[in-house]
Amino acid sequence: MASASWILSLSCPDRPGIVHAVSGLLARHEGNITESQQFGDPDTGLFFMRVEFSSSADRATLEGAILEVLAPFDMTWTLDVAGRRMRTVVMVSKAAHCVNDLLFRERAGTLPIDIAAVVGNHETLRPLAEFYGKPFHHIPVTADTKPQAEAQVLALVESLDVELVVLARYMQILSPELSTALHGRAINIHHSFLPSFKGARPYFQAHDRGVKLIGATAHYVTADLDEGPIIEQDVDRVDHTATPETLTALGADVERRALARAVRWHAEHRVLLDGHRTIVFS
Amino acid sequence: MASASWILSLSCPDRPGIVHAVSGLLARHEGNITESQQFGDPDTGLFFMRVEFSSSADRATLEGAILEVLAPFDMTWTLDVAGRRMRTVVMVSKAAHCVNDLLFRERAGTLPIDIAAVVGNHETLRPLAEFYGKPFHHIPVTADTKPQAEAQVLALVESLDVELVVLARYMQILSPELSTALHGRAINIHHSFLPSFKGARPYFQAHDRGVKLIGATAHYVTADLDEGPIIEQDVDRVDHTATPETLTALGADVERRALARAVRWHAEHRVLLDGHRTIVFS
Amino acid sequence: MASASWILSLSCPDRPGIVHAVSGLLARHEGNITESQQFGDPDTGLFFMRVEFSSSADRATLEGAILEVLAPFDMTWTLDVAGRRMRTVVMVSKAAHCVNDLLFRERAGTLPIDIAAVVGNHETLRPLAEFYGKPFHHIPVTADTKPQAEAQVLALVESLDVELVVLARYMQILSPELSTALHGRAINIHHSFLPSFKGARPYFQAHDRGVKLIGATAHYVTADLDEGPIIEQDVDRVDHTATPETLTALGADVERRALARAVRWHAEHRVLLDGHRTIVFS
Amino acid sequence: MASASWILSLSCPDRPGIVHAVSGLLARHEGNITESQQFGDPDTGLFFMRVEFSSSADRATLEGAILEVLAPFDMTWTLDVAGRRMRTVVMVSKAAHCVNDLLFRERAGTLPIDIAAVVGNHETLRPLAEFYGKPFHHIPVTADTKPQAEAQVLALVESLDVELVVLARYMQILSPELSTALHGRAINIHHSFLPSFKGARPYFQAHDRGVKLIGATAHYVTADLDEGPIIEQDVDRVDHTATPETLTALGADVERRALARAVRWHAEHRVLLDGHRTIVFS
Repeated sequence: MASASWILSLSCPDRPGIVHAVSGLLARHEGNITESQQFGDPDTGLFFMRVEFSSSADRATLEGAILEVLAPFDMTWTLDVAGRRMRTVVMVSKAAHCVNDLLFRERAGTLPIDIAAVVGNHETLRPLAEFYGKPFHHIPVTADTKPQAEAQVLALVESLDVELVVLARYMQILSPELSTALHGRAINIHHSFLPSFKGARPYFQAHDRGVKLIGATAHYVTADLDEGPIIEQDVDRVDHTATPETLTALGADVERRALARAVRWHAEHRVLLDGHRTIVFS
Repeated sequence: MASASWILSLSCPDRPGIVHAVSGLLARHEGNITESQQFGDPDTGLFFMRVEFSSSADRATLEGAILEVLAPFDMTWTLDVAGRRMRTVVMVSKAAHCVNDLLFRERAGTLPIDIAAVVGNHETLRPLAEFYGKPFHHIPVTADTKPQAEAQVLALVESLDVELVVLARYMQILSPELSTALHGRAINIHHSFLPSFKGARPYFQAHDRGVKLIGATAHYVTADLDEGPIIEQDVDRVDHTATPETLTALGADVERRALARAVRWHAEHRVLLDGHRTIVFS
Repeated sequence: MASASWILSLSCPDRPGIVHAVSGLLARHEGNITESQQFGDPDTGLFFMRVEFSSSADRATLEGAILEVLAPFDMTWTLDVAGRRMRTVVMVSKAAHCVNDLLFRERAGTLPIDIAAVVGNHETLRPLAEFYGKPFHHIPVTADTKPQAEAQVLALVESLDVELVVLARYMQILSPELSTALHGRAINIHHSFLPSFKGARPYFQAHDRGVKLIGATAHYVTADLDEGPIIEQDVDRVDHTATPETLTALGADVERRALARAVRWHAEHRVLLDGHRTIVFS
Repeated sequence: MASASWILSLSCPDRPGIVHAVSGLLARHEGNITESQQFGDPDTGLFFMRVEFSSSADRATLEGAILEVLAPFDMTWTLDVAGRRMRTVVMVSKAAHCVNDLLFRERAGTLPIDIAAVVGNHETLRPLAEFYGKPFHHIPVTADTKPQAEAQVLALVESLDVELVVLARYMQILSPELSTALHGRAINIHHSFLPSFKGARPYFQAHDRGVKLIGATAHYVTADLDEGPIIEQDVDRVDHTATPETLTALGADVERRALARAVRWHAEHRVLLDGHRTIVFS
């Protein structure tokens, strides 16, 4: 039987023998490890592992072996074919820079996602989505309709068997209920600064404060707005000639860059939740 | 007479004719511009200019011409010989990384400062200062003795004709009085994160939050702690394997790097105050 | 009359009085300088200046004044309305990453160019160009037809009144004749490494050599292939897990980033030729 | 018995079962893995592993188990106590920036090396070495005395039981014989550019070419000058105002930064040789 390449990612309470148990089950199925990383977090007492391996065993066989061998370890795990494209919904508002980047990278084959739909609370980005052959769902949101709108989103996510929801400058705060329903599979991107700014028009505040770096943070969505586990951060230099508009434009570049990395790492099962932190086996 | 290289830095309320007035007085004294930058800030209505030029005129002649020509513009200006080393005091506590970097760069000739003294609230760094041939002044600070200690510092700054005070991880908050006395000529360095953290043990907070970047901000000291005009910021990448101790060590690298740049730009008259922002003609 | 914002960029043999002459003509036309930079290169003996200013004078008046005042300085200069979009042709082959970025940025309003046409030696990128509303010209090139193909390109450039030609991974070497015809108005992007590699399949060579950084260089096209004046360079980190394919994908990100900056700076008249170097007033 | 923290690094021809064998021997000695990485290189057919683990077993027990269990794998391995400082000799000429950085980091406790001696072909850096309490050996080198000088160096390295030799801007080319004798345990730092330059005065060539980035490469010393396996690379931005002297000063910063990282990773057994490449488990 032909050999395939697999990714196994897992976490569990730390104790001796985990790697040995995993490597043993791989060895018994002719698994050859091509890349692997492990980390034990002394603070949370959790152990994390990601292993890419080739094996001619089929999924059922591997899953059976995992269930049997790893049961004692109280483990959270995923097994996936390496390179499989993760079913994704991208949620947008009017700003195109992040979703354009994701659509382009999917088509270029450099981001292992399969964007099943684009959801917008405005119609603005329908042409872009449709150029890339993606269904565009217009789901407007007002204070009154938010519960129904979120129900629509969740129904779509479930009907499309979606594994990842990317908030690509969606500009809407998800309710705690939807955040919880999408726990660990929704990624948001937002601007970040040193120092950070609260409130509206952050690039105007950054300009007013005269910052020399502007940044962006990609993080998992939680009910605690903009405070979810950080996956990736990036910055770019700016100087005194930058206007708030220039800062916004440069910030858009940083945002799309940090988001694309976070999505790629998530889709490659490189990101594992460690309490309110992440382990990123990049 | 031999030609020397000069730096003229200035700011004033914006209006037409400033550059023409400056370039006219330079032209009349055979000044040849080698590097220059100008910027008008539409928010504050201020205009900023830095010009390096060669001229065989002496200082008195140039200053006289500046006073005469630029009087109508309500200008703040400095005229300096390019490359002259700025008289500097470095204030330290126990951490050596920033002061070691400044002392090394001064000796290597890559930082145009002349460190006239190192002031420490502990004796820890005396040997390092003395290895570089610098007088070390031990001025301890307690809650009770702070006013006297600051008076000593200020007396030292004045007696040594000091133009720049660098707080190189001094770890003491200057009083509003001393901050005011050193307005525009004291530079501090502190850690910075996205998001930022308030309170004690910031690298522990950063670790707890799982940040992927750690940073540092060099800024002018004002009575508003850690909120003075930003001169320079920098960051470095970290990952989940970093402990609070590792973050602290990596942070030290970022701190010394941002501080050295800020000090160099200040010493080269490249930094001009624009309200609570800075113009940096780097 | 309403005030407009202008950009004047110039270079000439260095001598005293240039800035004074320029600022004088601005002052006489109520020009208010908002941003300006000057630099004198001691190696080439050339002086460079870029000034943004507001003035209510019209173009004819300003141009007349420039011609009159600046004649003695043997000056090369351009006068442009700030923010005017530069007429551009983008040349492509099959790789989409650079042209997609340029088209997106033009539409987003963050790159002051007006892409008048996309030229491809393959049909591959026609749909992308047409999605952005751009005429796509398929001009195939073989060893035999190269002179005719280049004549077609040049005719197109002239008929469309094109100011800038961007080789966005065009993968064809321009003849010395076409390079000369497009002197100073054609920008190319190519991969760059430390150390550099000659010959085919550079990302494979980079992988074989185990580089830790991959880079890209945007430069003006000259008859000396890949050796034209450098406008911008950038790099990204890679590690041992990167395959040649991964390196190529990461390299594409660096390429589009460096190219976008170079194009923006050129379109804003921030890049001036200084022999085989560039002055970039970024 | 108290538990200690260990590092096991190894490489061998790739085949199934390696990780299982290693994790098995760790499990049998109560080893708890805290951080680990594995990589199989499809090009060279080699497998690489680094594992940090805690265990109460003593060195003899662990080494015996490793010899027994890993014998069939034709493995190259090292076992070390985590955090143990590696015995190091630093070789210098007149430039202080790299050795100053290494000495400072050793003292600060952020670099796990124990500098046993500094060797200089000039006396220039004796005071710096002695300030840090290090023996300084002046071993001059001329064309005639090079064989004897290298013999002295090698004798010193052997008598001091040195594990790592750092060429910190030593400015002398090691003979093929000495390069071979120090194979895999000598690290050099040199400037790097895009494009690269051959021959003398590289920063002057870089200036002449108008590069926008300057870089440095830390690599293992081989008989093939400046072409040894790359451990780390870094760059910094420069612009047209930089003189060759400025480039040299900025280059010094990049050099010391890249060198310090390479030395730390080597001393932590994070760097494994993979033919003429390196695997860096950073």
